[in-house]
This record gives sequence, structure tokens and C-alpha cells, in this order.
Amino acid sequence: MSRDIVGAEIEHLIQLLSRLPGLGPRSARRVALHLIKNRDKLLTPLASAMAEARDKVVTCSQCGNVDTADPCTICTDPRRDNGIICVVEEVGDLWALERAAAINGRYHVLGGVLSAIEGIGPDDLNIEGLIRRAAEPGVSEIVLAVNATVDGQTTAHYITERLKGLDVAVSRLAHGVPVGGELDYLDEGTLAAAFKARRPY
Amino acid sequence: MSRDIVGAEIEHLIQLLSRLPGLGPRSARRVALHLIKNRDKLLTPLASAMAEARDKVVTCSQCGNVDTADPCTICTDPRRDNGIICVVEEVGDLWALERAAAINGRYHVLGGVLSAIEGIGPDDLNIEGLIRRAAEPGVSEIVLAVNATVDGQTTAHYITERLKGLDVAVSRLAHGVPVGGELDYLDEGTLAAAFKARRPY
Ligand SMILES: [Zn+2]
Ligand SMILES: [Zn+2]
Repeated sequence: MSRDIVGAEIEHLIQLLSRLPGLGPRSARRVALHLIKNRDKLLTPLASAMAEARDKVVTCSQCGNVDTADPCTICTDPRRDNGIICVVEEVGDLWALERAAAINGRYHVLGGVLSAIEGIGPDDLNIEGLIRRAAEPGVSEIVLAVNATVDGQTTAHYITERLKGLDVAVSRLAHGVPVGGELDYLDEGTLAAAFKARRPY
Repeated sequence: MSRDIVGAEIEHLIQLLSRLPGLGPRSARRVALHLIKNRDKLLTPLASAMAEARDKVVTCSQCGNVDTADPCTICTDPRRDNGIICVVEEVGDLWALERAAAINGRYHVLGGVLSAIEGIGPDDLNIEGLIRRAAEPGVSEIVLAVNATVDGQTTAHYITERLKGLDVAVSRLAHGVPVGGELDYLDEGTLAAAFKARRPY
């Protein structure tokens, strides 16, 4: 702000809030005021929830999901089909597919995609873990549910090459996913249909 | 979510985030994931900043501003003109006027406006405090910087009536403020110009 009108604590809070995705300086101020005005109903529980998340949330060492348990709830769920591993770029994609209830297998979160421009190579992604998991007994299919972007498809191609020689089928989501589209923005019906119509890679 | 795929802690965090102004369920999930992915750089400092705000931010007993001191930084600033009190609806309006550096006086935050429909009467607003402050020696002008809405103008009219008999001039912001517009959305130049061209009520 142009003058020192709010205490350093509020200024700091606004500055941090403005770094959240989708929030600019103006909306960060609105959020800060809303929090201060709703101290008991919102600020206090949200501060606690963030502290809880900070202390308890871990990355699953098996699949890369985030959860309060490692291995995560999905990896340890006995009702899940151990034979299918669905490969996604980010945890947000995993959540999107789960909301669609499209998959009853497990997941593998790459943590991104290969990108020559951004200098992201295979070692920067969780690919070795995937190859290890794909070689485990009982695993029969790897579904490549990466985004329909150039980098996503490059990554899918690379993984397919790496999986050659293993006794697993490799499939990808059907072309219900719009070209250039990101999974996290798709409606649940499209995601479910795309998964059902998945084809061999 | 449709299935129990994220721990209760994350689900709770998402649910609270979705109650922030401007965030829906989808953007709340994005924000939660962004926080979890940036634990050290964002989640931890933001959790601390919120706890600080929860513990330290108070409402100024004099003007209704929020700050970490009571009376607030503005009320105790010796460089401010004690003669002018600028009446605003909400703290966000005070911040907007401060960003415009339009006013070198003090403020009085009503905490809303009179509204027949919402059943908000004079006793629900911080009006008695304003009348007391307006009667203090040295106060020469009350600037009614309420929004140019019907309820805002009703409130301005009510306050003007209550101030009759006191030795203070009552003014309002010039008609640079668009009809129906809210102060917090205006650019700083318009706000500064509107304040400079304020006229007697
Ligand atoms: Zn897992
Ligand atoms: Zn004050």
C-alpha cells in the first residue's frame, strides 16, 4: 500500500495471499479483510487447517499422491484393482479422475512432463518409480492419462518406450479429451467416457 | 469429493478455502494443492501469518479500522489532521481511500449501511461513536464517503440529520463516484479527484 496504514502483520498476510493461484493484490486484500471480519468462523479454523496440512500431509512414496498417510489411502485400499496403474502428470489430475470415479486401479503421479524448453528431463520426473512398479507381479496395464498437450504426448511416448519388454499393456485415454485440454478442467462425464474408451498406445 | 480419496485434513482445508470470496470448489482445490506443493515457501508462512492475524489483529475502538494496535496507526498518527473525519462503510473503503492518499484526516468505519430490507438500523452501525467524535473539540468537518447506492445515501442523510446542531461542516465525495459504484472498485485517481471536489452535503 502507498502509506503505512495497515500493520505489518496484515500487510504480510495480504502479500502471501496474493501469491495464491487466481488471486491478485486486490482480491488478496478482499480475502484478508474477509478473514479478519470472520475471525472465529473462518480465520481461526483456516489457520488451524493450514497448520494441520503443513504438519501432516506427505507425498506417497509409492504413487506420488498427497495424503496424511504413506502409502496413501488409494495405494492401501484393498478394494482397488492392483493390475491397473493410471499415470498422471499432477495430483490435481488424480483428483479429477477420482471425482469422475473413472478408475478403480491405482495411480502414478509423474510430477510434471518432459519439456525441452523448460529443461525437464526423465530424471526430473517420477519415471523410474513407475518402471519399477510396472515390473511388479500382477500389474497388467499402464494407462497413460497425461494431458493432450505436445509435452504430455512426448512424455507418454517416452514412457511407452521404457515399458517395452515388460509384460504390461499400455493404453491411453480415448480422444474424448480435447486436444490441448487439461484434465483438471474437464467435466466428469467426459473423463469417465475417455477412460472407458481407452485404447492401446 | 465423490470418493474418500483425500485425507480428512485436506478435505477440510479445501472446504474452508472454498468459503473465501472469489473462490469456488474448483479453485479451492487448486489453491490447496498449490499450498501443499509449496509447503515451505507458502503453506508454512501463510499458516503463521493467519495465526498472527488471528492473535493480534483488533478493531480500533475509536474508528473501527482493523490493525494490530488499538487505537489504530491512523488514529494515533500525529501528522494527521484531527479536524477531518471521513466516514466509510467498511474497512475496505478506508484502505481504498488510503491507497489513493486522498485524505490526511482520520476515518470512521460504520460497519455497513442502513437497510430496511436487511433490517439494519442505526443501532447496528457504529453511528453513536461518530456523533461522539464529531462533538469533540477541534473536529470541523465530517466527510461522508459512503457508497453511491440507495442505502449509502439513506445512511448519509440519516447521519447528516444526527449531526445537525453540532459545529461541524458535513460534506460528501464529489460526483466523480459513479452512481451505484462501490469505492473499493474505483481507481485511485478517481477517488482522489472525488475527495478534492467534495461539496457540502
Ligand atoms: Zn499412493
Ligand atoms: Zn482507529
